[in-house]
Amino acid sequence: MSDFFARHLGAIDSDRDELLASLGFETLDQLTEAVVPEAIRLTEDLALPAALSEFEVQQRLTALAARNNPGVPMIGLGYHATVTPPILRRMVLENPAWYTAYTPYQPEISQGRLEALANFQTMIADLTGLPVAGASLLDEGTAVAEAVALARRASRRQGAVLVDPKLLPQSLAVLRTRCAAVGVEVRVAEAGVAAALEDEDYFAVVLQLPAADGTLPGQAELVELVDRAHQAGALVITAVDLLALTLIGSAGAWGADIAVGSAQRFGVPLFYGGPHAGFIAVRSGLERQLPGRIVGLSKDADGVPAFRLALQTREQHIRREKATSNICTAQVLLAVAAGCYAVHHGPEGLTAIASAAHRSATRLAAALVAAGYELASETFFDTLTVHTPGRADAIVAAARAAGVHLRRIDADAVGVSIGEGIGEDDLAAVSAAFGASAPTQDTWGGLGDHRRQGEFLTHPVFRNYRSETELMRYLRTLADRDFALDKGMIPLGSCTLKLNPAAAMEPISYPGFAGLHPFVAAADATGYAELVEQLCDWLAEITGYDQVSLQPNAGSQGEFAGLMAIRSYHLAQGQPERVVCLIPASAHGTNAASAVLAGMRVVVVATAADGSVDLDDLRAKIAEHAERLAAVMVTYPSTHGVFEDTITEICQLVHAAGGQVYVDGANLNAMLGLARPGRFGADVSHLNLHKTFAIPHGGGGPGVGPVAVRAHLAPFLPKHPLVEAAGPQTSYGPVSAGPFGSAGVLPISWAFIALMGPDGLKLASQTAILAANYVAHRLAPYFPVLYTGASGLVAHECIVDLRELSHQTGVSVDDVAKRLIDFGFHAPTMSFPVAGTLMIEPTESESKAELDRFCDAMIAIRGEMDQVAAGQWPADDNPLHNAPHPAARVLAGEWNHPYPRDLGAFPAGFATGPVGSGGRDKYWPAVGRIDGAYGDRNLICTCAPVSAYEDQSGEL
Amino acid sequence: MSDFFARHLGAIDSDRDELLASLGFETLDQLTEAVVPEAIRLTEDLALPAALSEFEVQQRLTALAARNNPGVPMIGLGYHATVTPPILRRMVLENPAWYTAYTPYQPEISQGRLEALANFQTMIADLTGLPVAGASLLDEGTAVAEAVALARRASRRQGAVLVDPKLLPQSLAVLRTRCAAVGVEVRVAEAGVAAALEDEDYFAVVLQLPAADGTLPGQAELVELVDRAHQAGALVITAVDLLALTLIGSAGAWGADIAVGSAQRFGVPLFYGGPHAGFIAVRSGLERQLPGRIVGLSKDADGVPAFRLALQTREQHIRREKATSNICTAQVLLAVAAGCYAVHHGPEGLTAIASAAHRSATRLAAALVAAGYELASETFFDTLTVHTPGRADAIVAAARAAGVHLRRIDADAVGVSIGEGIGEDDLAAVSAAFGASAPTQDTWGGLGDHRRQGEFLTHPVFRNYRSETELMRYLRTLADRDFALDKGMIPLGSCTLKLNPAAAMEPISYPGFAGLHPFVAAADATGYAELVEQLCDWLAEITGYDQVSLQPNAGSQGEFAGLMAIRSYHLAQGQPERVVCLIPASAHGTNAASAVLAGMRVVVVATAADGSVDLDDLRAKIAEHAERLAAVMVTYPSTHGVFEDTITEICQLVHAAGGQVYVDGANLNAMLGLARPGRFGADVSHLNLHKTFAIPHGGGGPGVGPVAVRAHLAPFLPKHPLVEAAGPQTSYGPVSAGPFGSAGVLPISWAFIALMGPDGLKLASQTAILAANYVAHRLAPYFPVLYTGASGLVAHECIVDLRELSHQTGVSVDDVAKRLIDFGFHAPTMSFPVAGTLMIEPTESESKAELDRFCDAMIAIRGEMDQVAAGQWPADDNPLHNAPHPAARVLAGEWNHPYPRDLGAFPAGFATGPVGSGGRDKYWPAVGRIDGAYGDRNLICTCAPVSAYEDQSGEL
Repeated sequence: MSDFFARHLGAIDSDRDELLASLGFETLDQLTEAVVPEAIRLTEDLALPAALSEFEVQQRLTALAARNNPGVPMIGLGYHATVTPPILRRMVLENPAWYTAYTPYQPEISQGRLEALANFQTMIADLTGLPVAGASLLDEGTAVAEAVALARRASRRQGAVLVDPKLLPQSLAVLRTRCAAVGVEVRVAEAGVAAALEDEDYFAVVLQLPAADGTLPGQAELVELVDRAHQAGALVITAVDLLALTLIGSAGAWGADIAVGSAQRFGVPLFYGGPHAGFIAVRSGLERQLPGRIVGLSKDADGVPAFRLALQTREQHIRREKATSNICTAQVLLAVAAGCYAVHHGPEGLTAIASAAHRSATRLAAALVAAGYELASETFFDTLTVHTPGRADAIVAAARAAGVHLRRIDADAVGVSIGEGIGEDDLAAVSAAFGASAPTQDTWGGLGDHRRQGEFLTHPVFRNYRSETELMRYLRTLADRDFALDKGMIPLGSCTLKLNPAAAMEPISYPGFAGLHPFVAAADATGYAELVEQLCDWLAEITGYDQVSLQPNAGSQGEFAGLMAIRSYHLAQGQPERVVCLIPASAHGTNAASAVLAGMRVVVVATAADGSVDLDDLRAKIAEHAERLAAVMVTYPSTHGVFEDTITEICQLVHAAGGQVYVDGANLNAMLGLARPGRFGADVSHLNLHKTFAIPHGGGGPGVGPVAVRAHLAPFLPKHPLVEAAGPQTSYGPVSAGPFGSAGVLPISWAFIALMGPDGLKLASQTAILAANYVAHRLAPYFPVLYTGASGLVAHECIVDLRELSHQTGVSVDDVAKRLIDFGFHAPTMSFPVAGTLMIEPTESESKAELDRFCDAMIAIRGEMDQVAAGQWPADDNPLHNAPHPAARVLAGEWNHPYPRDLGAFPAGFATGPVGSGGRDKYWPAVGRIDGAYGDRNLICTCAPVSAYEDQSGEL
Repeated sequence: MSDFFARHLGAIDSDRDELLASLGFETLDQLTEAVVPEAIRLTEDLALPAALSEFEVQQRLTALAARNNPGVPMIGLGYHATVTPPILRRMVLENPAWYTAYTPYQPEISQGRLEALANFQTMIADLTGLPVAGASLLDEGTAVAEAVALARRASRRQGAVLVDPKLLPQSLAVLRTRCAAVGVEVRVAEAGVAAALEDEDYFAVVLQLPAADGTLPGQAELVELVDRAHQAGALVITAVDLLALTLIGSAGAWGADIAVGSAQRFGVPLFYGGPHAGFIAVRSGLERQLPGRIVGLSKDADGVPAFRLALQTREQHIRREKATSNICTAQVLLAVAAGCYAVHHGPEGLTAIASAAHRSATRLAAALVAAGYELASETFFDTLTVHTPGRADAIVAAARAAGVHLRRIDADAVGVSIGEGIGEDDLAAVSAAFGASAPTQDTWGGLGDHRRQGEFLTHPVFRNYRSETELMRYLRTLADRDFALDKGMIPLGSCTLKLNPAAAMEPISYPGFAGLHPFVAAADATGYAELVEQLCDWLAEITGYDQVSLQPNAGSQGEFAGLMAIRSYHLAQGQPERVVCLIPASAHGTNAASAVLAGMRVVVVATAADGSVDLDDLRAKIAEHAERLAAVMVTYPSTHGVFEDTITEICQLVHAAGGQVYVDGANLNAMLGLARPGRFGADVSHLNLHKTFAIPHGGGGPGVGPVAVRAHLAPFLPKHPLVEAAGPQTSYGPVSAGPFGSAGVLPISWAFIALMGPDGLKLASQTAILAANYVAHRLAPYFPVLYTGASGLVAHECIVDLRELSHQTGVSVDDVAKRLIDFGFHAPTMSFPVAGTLMIEPTESESKAELDRFCDAMIAIRGEMDQVAAGQWPADDNPLHNAPHPAARVLAGEWNHPYPRDLGAFPAGFATGPVGSGGRDKYWPAVGRIDGAYGDRNLICTCAPVSAYEDQSGEL
């Protein structure tokens, strides 16, 4: 008995019938037959296992988790034992108020997580000793690659990048992938970085600190190295261990220009390799080059300090083919967790954890040295490399038998990395595996000449929450400022904010999934292996492709991997000249950015008047670039919310010219069980598991963007240098640091598919299409619906056009979006793909009641626009222009607006919450409308100084 | 490295020093030496294990949980397999917004859980077919006992109670305990109820439906039985299975007067026997006799419908020695969960779950009958009794080997109870254990003539939340209406609302703790056995007693058990005449109520002018009742918040007269590591694990009230009829249905003690005393502190006296309490133990910042009182009189009060939340002040009819 699909769908039974009737249909099948072109329509059922109940799914996942063996993870290599504070697990990682939120593009309803991200940025900046940090990158490996790209831009030099041979192997491999794509040479300084610098021209040097083998170069040595690099015109990038930085000289202190790394060991579960927050920090002068998102302080319409994403004009979704990075999703949830870990422990607590790990390492070192072992270095933080000629396998096996995972470096060396929560028993077990006595209080080795100078994490936020009671309230307060799916609908077009079922979310906390190190032996990860294999099979079946890789840990990464597969294929076919990627003008900016990163040349194809791809222009562009055509990259259904019936023709035209077809899977939520891109002509797609397959958006990450390909591209899916099962050996390399990307959240999508089954998935897409058409139908009399298909219907989202109304009234799309906050809604997607419009995607999870509440709000807003048009309210002083209305403003002593104060907070006739609740359940925005430009002119990217609030205190 | 105690304590390091300095002390030891009388002061350290870290504690509890073997629980006997919906686990059971709330005595800040309880009451009333249900009782066993007491009062008859021999054995045993205490005879109708009714006079008949062996008496037979009972002047009480009621005739339909039972199988984990919500529902005419709490609908000052606890004048804390029940704590959290389970599934879903269980039972029955087994009955719901002459042990063992727990009834019979989530594999395993073939689609037996008539759960709340998205938002909305510890301080005197650490809370969800049936074999519960033993040892060490029983599942139950130990002791000494219990006038009303229930006679001892026990009156009362003196029952430190230095003298006087000394442990939070009642003269205490030992209050339950005794009383601790390890065989019987009471939440207290260690516990009490004295010190210039000890200091709470101020200004204690809501605080305890006062207990977990915020609020309120006194505001129209101020009121178009509207919501100069936050983090009360009397005159105890809101809709 499984009825989960009925819980996932917002409208079933009589509600579904009412929605259908309003559109003139009797059944869902009738509706979707009218919407989905016959040529691509799937006629058979998906060959997936029948739906299971929530109880059954959790039983299966419990059994799979039990087949993984987390043990005590002492492998290191960028993934370390850490203790997730229970209060953070409960209040953040397992709390829908945090994980169901969207990216904070609407800052007025995102002040909580923006503050949490400012804490993260402050923590990174303080620890690295570099003044400006971003709000997270996808992982440490891609952070290295992004840093190298940044250095290349900033240095304005060609040449190669010089890499420390002791860079983490997965970072080096990701860097090689990214550099190879754009023709930058990576040179590994096998004889040492200092020596290599003498010979050649490098635009950057990449170091790892401590090195992959645990060695800690001396601080004086680093200063000298930096000096030499700078003299040679190279920027210095260092990957750093965040915990070590509490004890050793900061990257800024010894002169590095850019620091990157992973915040995993700040309380984030190992998750079999991800998701974790990568970080990047730069010296002054480089801040406007930072890839990814930056949170900055600005102020709102009332002068109240307020956070928002800074410098958004740099972002790829605006820069498109001029983008320098394709990063879209960040790792917000994980960055929040890591930042909160620092808030929880404070500088003293972090230093104590680091000191304990270091001391354990020195004690273990003494025991091993006493037993006659030789270590790689006498200076280290918490990681040792032990020479064990011929005995590595035996030692690793002995440790494993005692429940401890060590690193088998090669047949003659073993790595041991101490983390948080490693106890005396564990140390004794490791010693025993080496045949040594248990560590005593004797120590061997140390930090060398490293000394952390000065205080860090001095902002009060890192001091005020030692008490769990205070921290609990702080986390609740931040969560309450934000609007997430647990408060109401988030109808963002192309973003698919649907239910993240609790039954699917709980398993990611199971220790068998959360606690596993990515580089354990295959025998210790058989549960994950089965889960990955099944999930790949299911996704292939759903999409009609032959092979899937789960490695890309964001949609943008999936795009990059897909385009790399196409490039690799053309190379393998002896056609290196095929580098032109055709992209319609309406495409998401990331498409173009990814193509550039994959070394392609973007050629834009025009959009016809009806919003579809201009076939004439497509033919012309194909003809123009015939010999060099690599691919066409289209979104389907289109970003205009329509199933274009020309898709098969597009595929044929491109194939005929020797190109490959990339279908962006962003809108797959419209096609489950209805159509399969892998069967209607496409060669490759990326999927967004954080959209269609119920992984939550996490407030702006993690994302999971698997790439799915037809068989001829399968040899070019990503692989991994340390985990053979991650991909084909014929591949160019990895795109992410983790072998299976964000493995830790894959149980969510596995559970979602298992819960829905083939029938449920089809119903999901059908219901999503139903909901979008219902909204379009209700709103059309008030706001023109911009595009529809041949049947007059839309797909799973619709675009309403405000341009004419804006022209008449002066009320902008922005005003409408902000006014929706007063009504208790997140705004739809603004001005994409067409300026002056709103793109609405209700998804299958919203009830008729919520759809109606939203439509009622939009219609009420239209009424307010009419009042402005009629001159009842001035264009610059009306409820739309002044939206949103925080409590402080509507309660102020004076009220000098031409509309009543209660209309500001409680739009006329619109009950927020249950009928007659008297507004008791209203969502109050934390601030008024934010002045973004002010913040960009006065860039502050760390915690707000207390003085920022000085003018405000006592105002209420 | 354990620093948990520092997270638990609100004030450490420099904050602690500041607090101490303000009181003129340098160290905590100096302070507590001045507070705690030397005669009782503990000089050695507590002999407890050293503190462990959160990580270590969770590792230990993980290991203990793994030693329990939940298997598939098919034992029945009132505890059934059920599937807790993940969304409820995450949003309710694991959400501090629900579990850290207090009892909803302040309804304006409790509308969320009051609505959830109204849902529970509606569900119980609908399913039982009886119009009025209470908001939960402690368990099914005590519910039976309460129902019998109710029937005795209502019938105004003496005589015996007649009991169905197939009543659940633990219910019968609890009933026997309670009846024996007050001299009511329990007669078991071994030859059948109908036959027994012919002979004798009974005031009530108690049935079990289905019977303990699964048998379902026919509906017609029940109608006839009721008729006969009523003719004989007896009320009919039936214990019922809530799930069965979806299919069979409701208790009301066949004429029962009172229905009781357990709501466990509505989604509440088995928890090794508790906590679960017991329920009671009565026919019209009996509602004002209901024991425990009832939620009822009333309206607020603006006429908005609002819930609050109805008919509070019936409650024991007011009726004291005239009380008819000692129930204080309910099972709010569990009742909320069970009610939400019904909201989640709705009538169709519940019926489907019941039908599936019933069908599985009939299929299994067919398989067993086909294999030649004889079953006890052909009519049953989901429980079978199988005759297995001589083979019961072998069959139970075979099932256990296959992972299924069956009930060994005796050597010749096995019980099988189907629950939710029992799959085909489980049924096949059971069949196999019996040597039968796996069940086919054949069925045997059924419901007989039972047919559920008419619809149930027709209120929209049971229909509108099939969608998980909608349910998630509903649960969030309810939680947001309430004020719990996650929003701010709850300074309730004598209630000890302190931190409930996440590290201690998480383990209760471990399947090894949550999923265990209470009647598994001892070998399947060795983890719990060790946990129980250690916890008892630790509590004995902390209190100085010799033996502890964890069975009492509320403080009131602990009192009852303690007094029963005293009575049993006197009986064993051949002194049955010792029944007088001396209780000071200032004692909590429950003390007296418990004494009455234990068959004692309460004699009140006067309070001296300084609030202490009047020793002269005590001597006089002892003299007067010398031969009949059973006990004195005092609270220490006293309910006046003072360590009276006469305590040792009191103990000596009572002991000298042959009496026993009962020290109410409600205030144990002041004594950890400082004094031990078991060593300074007391014979018995109950403890409140939900106060001192960090179990959360759950919004009004679960409570856990272990009883601790000196060795001579140990033979009279409670035992259990089905679990030998639960208590001494010399005992009178059980006080709770579960062998270890609320076993499922005991890991919280275990974790708390393990986390704090001996030093941390002592620091907790010292810090609690420090905080109370700091608050008293700051408030004294504004509000007189009523009582202090000889040193001029208070214990862990203080009473501030408003009587004179109220007299001058007309501002009542109630006004101050409600005004505190506008400031973002829960009120202190009102008018206990002295009318016109507030009793403030800040606990050790509140930070200096929060203590100051509270004191600032109180001082600001004093300022507002002064303005009223000065005539600036009329006595009947000022911010105190009108408090609390909901958003709807302060934003209304018209504002006709003599103070500004923003002062109503944002008290002058008082920033709610972070400095300068502009009020963004304000807690808004869901309603204005509630008119309780209106609701009592117009009693509505189910979900608010939608029409109740009709006058309100559109108001905003």
